Amino acid sequence: MKFTLFARMTAEFVGTAFLLMAVVGSGIMGERLSGGNLAIALLANTLATGAALVALILTFGPVSGAHFNPAVSLADASRRGMPWRETPAYIIAQLLGAYTGVMSAHAMFSLPLVSASRHNRSGTAQWFSEFIATFGLLSVIWGCSRLRTSVVPFAVGAYITAAYWFTASTSFANPAVTLARAASDTFSGIRPADAPGFIAAQLIGAAAATALFSWLVPSLPAVARDVLVPHASESS
Amino acid sequence: MKFTLFARMTAEFVGTAFLLMAVVGSGIMGERLSGGNLAIALLANTLATGAALVALILTFGPVSGAHFNPAVSLADASRRGMPWRETPAYIIAQLLGAYTGVMSAHAMFSLPLVSASRHNRSGTAQWFSEFIATFGLLSVIWGCSRLRTSVVPFAVGAYITAAYWFTASTSFANPAVTLARAASDTFSGIRPADAPGFIAAQLIGAAAATALFSWLVPSLPAVARDVLVPHASESS
Amino acid sequence: MKFTLFARMTAEFVGTAFLLMAVVGSGIMGERLSGGNLAIALLANTLATGAALVALILTFGPVSGAHFNPAVSLADASRRGMPWRETPAYIIAQLLGAYTGVMSAHAMFSLPLVSASRHNRSGTAQWFSEFIATFGLLSVIWGCSRLRTSVVPFAVGAYITAAYWFTASTSFANPAVTLARAASDTFSGIRPADAPGFIAAQLIGAAAATALFSWLVPSLPAVARDVLVPHASESS
Amino acid sequence: MKFTLFARMTAEFVGTAFLLMAVVGSGIMGERLSGGNLAIALLANTLATGAALVALILTFGPVSGAHFNPAVSLADASRRGMPWRETPAYIIAQLLGAYTGVMSAHAMFSLPLVSASRHNRSGTAQWFSEFIATFGLLSVIWGCSRLRTSVVPFAVGAYITAAYWFTASTSFANPAVTLARAASDTFSGIRPADAPGFIAAQLIGAAAATALFSWLVPSLPAVARDVLVPHASESS
Repeated sequence: MKFTLFARMTAEFVGTAFLLMAVVGSGIMGERLSGGNLAIALLANTLATGAALVALILTFGPVSGAHFNPAVSLADASRRGMPWRETPAYIIAQLLGAYTGVMSAHAMFSLPLVSASRHNRSGTAQWFSEFIATFGLLSVIWGCSRLRTSVVPFAVGAYITAAYWFTASTSFANPAVTLARAASDTFSGIRPADAPGFIAAQLIGAAAATALFSWLVPSLPAVARDVLVPHASESS
Repeated sequence: MKFTLFARMTAEFVGTAFLLMAVVGSGIMGERLSGGNLAIALLANTLATGAALVALILTFGPVSGAHFNPAVSLADASRRGMPWRETPAYIIAQLLGAYTGVMSAHAMFSLPLVSASRHNRSGTAQWFSEFIATFGLLSVIWGCSRLRTSVVPFAVGAYITAAYWFTASTSFANPAVTLARAASDTFSGIRPADAPGFIAAQLIGAAAATALFSWLVPSLPAVARDVLVPHASESS
Repeated sequence: MKFTLFARMTAEFVGTAFLLMAVVGSGIMGERLSGGNLAIALLANTLATGAALVALILTFGPVSGAHFNPAVSLADASRRGMPWRETPAYIIAQLLGAYTGVMSAHAMFSLPLVSASRHNRSGTAQWFSEFIATFGLLSVIWGCSRLRTSVVPFAVGAYITAAYWFTASTSFANPAVTLARAASDTFSGIRPADAPGFIAAQLIGAAAATALFSWLVPSLPAVARDVLVPHASESS
Repeated sequence: MKFTLFARMTAEFVGTAFLLMAVVGSGIMGERLSGGNLAIALLANTLATGAALVALILTFGPVSGAHFNPAVSLADASRRGMPWRETPAYIIAQLLGAYTGVMSAHAMFSLPLVSASRHNRSGTAQWFSEFIATFGLLSVIWGCSRLRTSVVPFAVGAYITAAYWFTASTSFANPAVTLARAASDTFSGIRPADAPGFIAAQLIGAAAATALFSWLVPSLPAVARDVLVPHASESS
């Protein structure tokens, strides 16, 4: 089925908004209920984010590819999975969705709609964590979209569930998510000044994984096109 | 396979009863065992509800569509997935099942069969939470039932798992569940006086998601008919 | 593929042994590590049991049907899914496996191989819980094995995950498991004197669910035969 | 699709590295955040490891078979699933990946890249635990790869999730993982002196399960070849 660019942007907008609601909202709820035990708060945050990703990619994947992530859209375009001229529209929709999601989460929990985070997340170890997190995420996407397209939602949900715990940065792995979380002075926030370092590390990680899989599975883009961007036949 | 309306009502009744047992029973067990840590109680409540939804939709989906939710039945009817004249029967079966489930949960835990909840859940933030919760639930159902019918049970279970944590209301998202939980003065209850506000927000959320997907995926009802209401060929 | 009765008994023996290791072993580990918080111990116990069921039914299902449960074997025979004359062999293999699993769990945790449980589990509320638990389990098995055989492992794992929390008895739902847990004076044990009450409630629950689905889906046995007992063509 | 041995070694290297990052990294994060409650730390460790296995096997399975484990490669070669002459290359890639993963985890959490563990794990009960853990893992792999190849990632992830809790050793079940964890003085470490006992028990457990399934399902290797080593047609 073919979807207009506006329909696909709508899917990216709504899906990214729900992703941010899941990340930020469950962080607030987890912190409020856990009585100071950060591990329990992060368990709740992890469970909600991983499960939300499964549901959202299943829901919006057939429409827009369910990128919800500028790093994924850029990687996809670099392999000709989607045309470069559509990439800015995807990224704009993702950013608008991300901020809408953060504000909606704040509204649900009776907080100010926007508040600059004071959560310090910087330094080499954090940047290396984001490099690893995004390298892994793109590896999972490229590896699974080759032969087993129907498992992408489960693979991505499972990966992020794990990466929340095995990276020191709790695996943002997404520039739109990073920018929007800078506007939330809650459990899952990040200081605005720390966002550029995270985003740079994410983009380098995404590029590295894309390069690895371009070599490992050369025929990848043609197959991935059907998976990540089911509308590709429309624009080619 | 064709099922009589009475068989489908039975499936809705039994399935909704087990759904409420899962919600209310695990709330009681979680609160009893968690020693006052509400985050741990809610983790248990979440795990039980999400897993129960997966099992119950897999079990009863082929018979009745596994709505278990008046908002889903109304949305389905509005898109001609099921005939309007059967909708009241579905809703009656869901309500009877929901109250039966609450009473069964109370019996299992040696509590009075019915007790009016004193759990205050009201205010704009709570209503907005229920709007979001139900908007998301119907989005997941419409999005997944289009092309990937076999994943609906997993997508719905994953969505509710997430929504328990990312909405401030813990995502009731279901008028029958809301009314029945008003009859349980336990962890997962809701004051009877607060139920109408929840139900109104839920119905508006369901309508909004149905409108969105009617525009996003115009051909949706014909496909969804097979998924949500496998008996549709019988009644048309 | 056809398997001899001895091969199928071996599969039931090994699978039931691992099921009991999962139940009893994770109960011991959970209690030891959780510092007295029973909710956390039960979360660990739940996670291990649900996940083990998924893995074990996927592994042994194609050989023996992966009953691991006399109530399931009896229900299957009552619907002619397996011949009555093979049922005693299945039940013997399940019982031997269950006790072997309990003793293996004790050996792994450096405990006496057998010890009579002192965990009091009796009374109407507990028996009603076991009735509900087993009614639900057999409903899930019959409902899923009709049309969606490949989801049985996930549906059963999800159901038990939920039922651990929503029944007051933590959902034994299995006579072989009940008898073997009477030989374990640990977190998941049950006083030997309380086992008969549990088993009676389980068998009544299994019979009720089998009767319900015999009416709801009359053509069920012929389809279920392929799922639960893939060897049926051999013996008919 | 055919992959060169070097490409497959790369997949084993990257996949095993991420597996160790998941095991060791989530152990560090869990211990840091859980305020001394070991059960919560192990829950986080379990969730991350099980989810990582699902994602990694889905990602790298189509390339190398996603062994990530010398015991699996040896068992596979013993059944002619892969040629013996390729087995050393696989094991080398796994070992290099395992140490790279441990060092990466340490770098993400600002720890020294290598540190000998002081975590005592020895004695008969621990060795019996590792025998059981690996016997179960290989049973799951052989059982699932026979008829249901697409479920292997989920079955292995679910099995390890359970085995973390039901074995007293938290189920290493992998010689490469054991050796690498000896180089991490953190939550998930093992004293170098204790590694040989673990590895011996693991290899015996793997051999026992392989023997069992060779008898139980004689036609196994030919089928399994497609699953575990999709490149086999290349080398035969």
